[in-house]
Amino acid sequence: MIKIESLERDLAAIRQNSPLIHNITNYVVMNNTANALLAIGASPVMAHTVEEVAEMASIASALVLNIGTLDHAQVEAMRIAGETASELDKPIVFDPVGAGATVYRTSTCKELIEACSPTIIRGNASEIMALCDSAVQTKGVDNTQSADTALGCAIQLAQQTGAIVTISGPTDYITDGTKTGTVKNGSPLMEKVTGLGCTATAIVAAFAAVNDDPFEAALHGMAVMGIAGELAASKAEGTGSMQVIFLDELYKLNNDIIRKYLIL
Amino acid sequence: MIKIESLERDLAAIRQNSPLIHNITNYVVMNNTANALLAIGASPVMAHTVEEVAEMASIASALVLNIGTLDHAQVEAMRIAGETASELDKPIVFDPVGAGATVYRTSTCKELIEACSPTIIRGNASEIMALCDSAVQTKGVDNTQSADTALGCAIQLAQQTGAIVTISGPTDYITDGTKTGTVKNGSPLMEKVTGLGCTATAIVAAFAAVNDDPFEAALHGMAVMGIAGELAASKAEGTGSMQVIFLDELYKLNNDIIRKYLIL
Amino acid sequence: MIKIESLERDLAAIRQNSPLIHNITNYVVMNNTANALLAIGASPVMAHTVEEVAEMASIASALVLNIGTLDHAQVEAMRIAGETASELDKPIVFDPVGAGATVYRTSTCKELIEACSPTIIRGNASEIMALCDSAVQTKGVDNTQSADTALGCAIQLAQQTGAIVTISGPTDYITDGTKTGTVKNGSPLMEKVTGLGCTATAIVAAFAAVNDDPFEAALHGMAVMGIAGELAASKAEGTGSMQVIFLDELYKLNNDIIRKYLIL
Repeated sequence: MIKIESLERDLAAIRQNSPLIHNITNYVVMNNTANALLAIGASPVMAHTVEEVAEMASIASALVLNIGTLDHAQVEAMRIAGETASELDKPIVFDPVGAGATVYRTSTCKELIEACSPTIIRGNASEIMALCDSAVQTKGVDNTQSADTALGCAIQLAQQTGAIVTISGPTDYITDGTKTGTVKNGSPLMEKVTGLGCTATAIVAAFAAVNDDPFEAALHGMAVMGIAGELAASKAEGTGSMQVIFLDELYKLNNDIIRKYLIL
Repeated sequence: MIKIESLERDLAAIRQNSPLIHNITNYVVMNNTANALLAIGASPVMAHTVEEVAEMASIASALVLNIGTLDHAQVEAMRIAGETASELDKPIVFDPVGAGATVYRTSTCKELIEACSPTIIRGNASEIMALCDSAVQTKGVDNTQSADTALGCAIQLAQQTGAIVTISGPTDYITDGTKTGTVKNGSPLMEKVTGLGCTATAIVAAFAAVNDDPFEAALHGMAVMGIAGELAASKAEGTGSMQVIFLDELYKLNNDIIRKYLIL
Repeated sequence: MIKIESLERDLAAIRQNSPLIHNITNYVVMNNTANALLAIGASPVMAHTVEEVAEMASIASALVLNIGTLDHAQVEAMRIAGETASELDKPIVFDPVGAGATVYRTSTCKELIEACSPTIIRGNASEIMALCDSAVQTKGVDNTQSADTALGCAIQLAQQTGAIVTISGPTDYITDGTKTGTVKNGSPLMEKVTGLGCTATAIVAAFAAVNDDPFEAALHGMAVMGIAGELAASKAEGTGSMQVIFLDELYKLNNDIIRKYLIL
């Protein structure tokens, strides 16, 4: 479903325009996320205090909200930045890290989605399922059905929120509630490096900053993640070098590499 | 004192069960610690807000409390999580980073130990000495005696608190107040990478999550750190590559490597 | 303008004395900054809670204040630590990350400079220009003049504050308001790794801890950054390996390398 020409056009636009991506994100991944955005050609800024998030969101081209190490002050900053970005029609990519693990995470996600109307929501299967109505979710008790059930949740969530919903996994699913795209690039080693999911969220935001079609932006971001991850895994000695080479591959990515490795 | 079969059994258990390790830790090492836990096969979660730490601690298999960049809110979260884990008989590993450097650090350490009854305390010689009665500590004025004096402090601290106390150094000491074990693997280059002590604390927690004997768990965790550190130092060009290769070595660790490199 | 013998003397002093550098800095770069300080031979401590920053600043040899991810509590801690260091005549290096991006950042910078009287201020051209009177700044409308205009701002800021002002860029400028030195080592790849500017600030602090002449300390710190960055860029495959090799090069830096690569 990915059009190679569109992906190439977006990558060129990111590198030419260096869109400013405002991240309110968790402390575990701030460094990696900033480096991944720089590697793809975007310009990251991390800022999370209530005194400045509205102003920062207003000068940025896209906003990332990631609740990985949430606390009360950061959630308040996310709400303010999200409302500002939403009013200004700037794309917001929301990452519900750990949704389902605690009541506080799940309820905060629902409140932020309600308050900020994210353009794109990206999580793994269990996070997306945690944001979904229990009627759909309970179908997932049978483990062999979990991928299907997560996709059902994603479709429902997309319909309810108007967001593009992306599930990361061995195959990534991207849905607008009606049509669903997939990305098949990637490597199991990516799950063994902390924060590559969060990095995906930030990279998707970089594509959303240059492409008005968020469905396409999410597809493009996930494709780029998958290609860089696959190449890095083929060269890495372990998870430490995986993290390093992944950034190198994002930095070196070009049209030849996309055409050679993208699984259509 | 390490039984190779027990260490191998614990490593296999970590990789099979992927125990969830809840970390309330400092901002400097969050990324490394998470990556080290993933590399050894455990499942890290970083969460530090009072709204969720009790619930997170209750679903985790072990809790890490590390005061490296403490503030009032984080200390309160540590207390809540620690009390929950303690009530539920889950292992708690406490890292008194920088104890002795300021009055606030030293007194906070003492309060957290009192409130949470950690299962294992891991620090370097000066940190352990800072937690020890002045009567024992002042013996340490003579520098050549510092290793012995620190061990004296560790034994006293273990007896007072009921915790296993671990001192990291050229030789690591692990004591329950009566018996003392040692780990001789490692490399001086490990001290030149920030947060490998904090990583040791987290790796010890992964072993404590799968082994009910915390003395053995501490020995096993420190042995694995020492082996991976020694191998990484032999391949590293400097401290940057040391950090990367260390994670690769943790990820690649297996029984053959343990049997080849463990110093008994 | 750099005297090689003075630079070598300072590097030897850092490695011999391991000066304690107290950092109140942003969450994105804490790990890198700590590792860079260890690699050059200094001893980093990150501590930012009001309960301990005065005591920590009083035992440190230099203080780094970096507003990258500022919030109200951290700014208050910076003020307390800065006032303490200032009273005790300890060098303070201030990094106005993102000055100009939001009103809050710019005004906080001005307040901290007023309250703490930093010894050295280090930023990029746009950050230094944001701290400068509008009369000077508006000359910069013509883009081709931006380097000259930034230097004009730096000279004005140095005269107003009494600080040494350093502008990072393709050529680094260091001025005390009267004389101006330059550092020509470096690589464009350094801008593609997050936080190398923040690392420069910390490395300059390590030199200020062993050299009472802050103009010389700033020159030496920037020279060391430039050499390590240039060597790392020549070996890196991309921005991931750049970050890793940069630390290796800082760690391996010696007089032979300085004499071979320093551009005078």
